[in-house]
Amino acid sequence: MNLTKLCDELRIFAQERDWEQFHTPKNLASALIVEASELLEHFQWLKTGELAELDERKQNEIRHELADVLMYLVRLADKLDVDLMAAASEKLEHNRIKYPTEKVRGDSRKYSEY
Amino acid sequence: MNLTKLCDELRIFAQERDWEQFHTPKNLASALIVEASELLEHFQWLKTGELAELDERKQNEIRHELADVLMYLVRLADKLDVDLMAAASEKLEHNRIKYPTEKVRGDSRKYSEY
Amino acid sequence: MNLTKLCDELRIFAQERDWEQFHTPKNLASALIVEASELLEHFQWLKTGELAELDERKQNEIRHELADVLMYLVRLADKLDVDLMAAASEKLEHNRIKYPTEKVRGDSRKYSEY
Amino acid sequence: MNLTKLCDELRIFAQERDWEQFHTPKNLASALIVEASELLEHFQWLKTGELAELDERKQNEIRHELADVLMYLVRLADKLDVDLMAAASEKLEHNRIKYPTEKVRGDSRKYSEY
Repeated sequence: MNLTKLCDELRIFAQERDWEQFHTPKNLASALIVEASELLEHFQWLKTGELAELDERKQNEIRHELADVLMYLVRLADKLDVDLMAAASEKLEHNRIKYPTEKVRGDSRKYSEY
Repeated sequence: MNLTKLCDELRIFAQERDWEQFHTPKNLASALIVEASELLEHFQWLKTGELAELDERKQNEIRHELADVLMYLVRLADKLDVDLMAAASEKLEHNRIKYPTEKVRGDSRKYSEY
Repeated sequence: MNLTKLCDELRIFAQERDWEQFHTPKNLASALIVEASELLEHFQWLKTGELAELDERKQNEIRHELADVLMYLVRLADKLDVDLMAAASEKLEHNRIKYPTEKVRGDSRKYSEY
Repeated sequence: MNLTKLCDELRIFAQERDWEQFHTPKNLASALIVEASELLEHFQWLKTGELAELDERKQNEIRHELADVLMYLVRLADKLDVDLMAAASEKLEHNRIKYPTEKVRGDSRKYSEY
């Protein structure tokens, strides 16, 4: 499986159920943040959310939420004709220039402008 | 580029800047929702957010936000030892069983339980 | 009941349960967005979410989510020594100047810069 | 100023600008979470977000974001005919019963089911 294949499968999944009508970019962007929030919910009262703070059940639920975020992200990118991997590569290159190693090392203030 | 390579590059990016200390799962889950919100912001007053409603500048900004969401998602999955593609495959299979085509076709109420 | 009284009651509620330790501003800001997301979830597949689209059960659930958002907002303002009503008055006055009636009437683009 | 007066002023503000057309419950719920996210953004890389971690400029920005959240919350409640203070009183009473002091004291696991 890779992102292209996942994208195709999700498109077919929606088409078979006649759900494309609900999958406007606006609705998908809402669905994406709702899933991102279900993910955050697992961490909101924890100290850092490192694996040691999460039992197996929690880890499994989080895994599902991560999958949901990815699926809506891929669907939304599909509707907007965006190549996610190309966009990420480009953004990463942009960030390498914007945050030179020697200038931002260990500095959360710099980071917070990310 | 694929997700595994992106994951490696983002890890190196963070290590080189000594930013791993800020990248707790809890903080990454917050950063993820903040990026998802910047994405939603582009759509909040639009009717559907289809491409016809978005000029080139908007499309480009949205592309960057999609990349940001993917990058934090990949970082968070990395910190939690989750294989994103495997998790998505599994969830998609789960959804195929949960939402049989003949039962949910065109039904947003069913869908809303997604 | 008014905001000041609600603020006092919520503080006592947290103190009595020894939950102040979890109510850091950061955690409360997370909890606030999680509740805002549970609110959005009710609307994500609807057209506009006007009352006609919501049955009584939905309306009741939404009412509870609105209350949850208000309660976390009041708690967070309390922890940060912010007078919510004064802040809102000030912001509204600021917006009156920033968006003169004659310049922005019916214009969602202007609005989207809000 | 109180919530009722703020509600009236915000309604007039929107009417004068012919913005009621954009203020569907769905759009307001999106705007609310976008503001909640701008609030969270200030805390995402901080340890706890206590006042000692926030300089005066940050505190002022956060105050504005708190105001924005309140304003959209009040607008949304107005569109849905919800009395926010009554809803919060009711929910608080509900929580007093759901989380008896002696059973949940200092327990974040109980709390996380909140």
